[in-house]
Amino acid sequence: MNKGRLIVFSAPSGCGKGTMLEEICKDDKFSCSISATTRAPRVGEVDGVNYHFLTREAFEKLIAEDGMLEYAQYCENYYGTPLKPVNDMLDAGKNVILEIEVQGAMKVKALRPDALLIFVLPPSIAELRRRLLKRGTEELDVIEKRVSQAAREIDEAVNYDYVIVNDALEDAVADFKAVIKAESLKTEFAAEQIHEVKKNA
Amino acid sequence: MNKGRLIVFSAPSGCGKGTMLEEICKDDKFSCSISATTRAPRVGEVDGVNYHFLTREAFEKLIAEDGMLEYAQYCENYYGTPLKPVNDMLDAGKNVILEIEVQGAMKVKALRPDALLIFVLPPSIAELRRRLLKRGTEELDVIEKRVSQAAREIDEAVNYDYVIVNDALEDAVADFKAVIKAESLKTEFAAEQIHEVKKNA
Repeated sequence: MNKGRLIVFSAPSGCGKGTMLEEICKDDKFSCSISATTRAPRVGEVDGVNYHFLTREAFEKLIAEDGMLEYAQYCENYYGTPLKPVNDMLDAGKNVILEIEVQGAMKVKALRPDALLIFVLPPSIAELRRRLLKRGTEELDVIEKRVSQAAREIDEAVNYDYVIVNDALEDAVADFKAVIKAESLKTEFAAEQIHEVKKNA
Repeated sequence: MNKGRLIVFSAPSGCGKGTMLEEICKDDKFSCSISATTRAPRVGEVDGVNYHFLTREAFEKLIAEDGMLEYAQYCENYYGTPLKPVNDMLDAGKNVILEIEVQGAMKVKALRPDALLIFVLPPSIAELRRRLLKRGTEELDVIEKRVSQAAREIDEAVNYDYVIVNDALEDAVADFKAVIKAESLKTEFAAEQIHEVKKNA
């Protein structure tokens, strides 16, 4: 069996990343990695579904054992990607998607040059602002902070392998799948296939 | 308007290349380049459709003026790809497909590093032989020569960018389109898009 592909997936807040991933992972060739964190679960969050909730000791032990593919600290809490479940899924032939932000993405790229980095753009900054306003869950000043943050993150898109604009969900998901398909057809992965074609001549 | 992509398309005889191209070119984003030749038209062949039929003098004049993207001589006749119609179609935003053999493909790759090289494989050499036998148009020894030729050509597939197996026509055409779509999403082509997203912030 072919190994799956490690995919890093980043998008500014408000780009519809969550909905895209939900749609993509309906296809059982894809699996989303579940992050680990030391923060307390919020109401309704389930261990092993939303996050792997770990104690600070358990998280630091994993770091010490090189058991984290990448990790960072925000607001006194650790967030990271445990390595073993990722490798297990890849070995099982699944394409594993890491939904992480730009800094984490660059760390993964450095450690795993075979990782495929995909960045999702909004159709425009103006449209991003409209979407955030439409949600209606945040104050205007928070929204403007998110918009500025998004603009900074978009500058990092050049460090990714592919850029997909999420204008219509269906098109964006089709673009994502086209990228994964095309990557699997690259000649560098075809040596075995060429060998198969030629045997039993 | 974005320029089209120059696509080099090669496949051993019996891989269903013609049927694939017919299907692909139903989509008006794609256009097949028409080769030029100095050989005489065969019954039913139309100038400007099957080939551009040129005199030896006209062909050599094009060569002298760097008007041929690639050319070769077989059996006293010239065959080649006139450059101007290719560039005109690319400027008009069409993806232009050159259906050429391996040597010509390598010449195009050297001259136009932006060209995308796609090689089509049969599911197996045994299946290729079955297809050629089924056609029933050639003697057994000719078929065996074609099969050996195909095996040699397949060794050159490693010099292409992508490899597609034509097992089922529909899947092979979908693979081809996925490659073209994914290529257009590569970050190296996204600078303008990123600029567009960020303006009117």
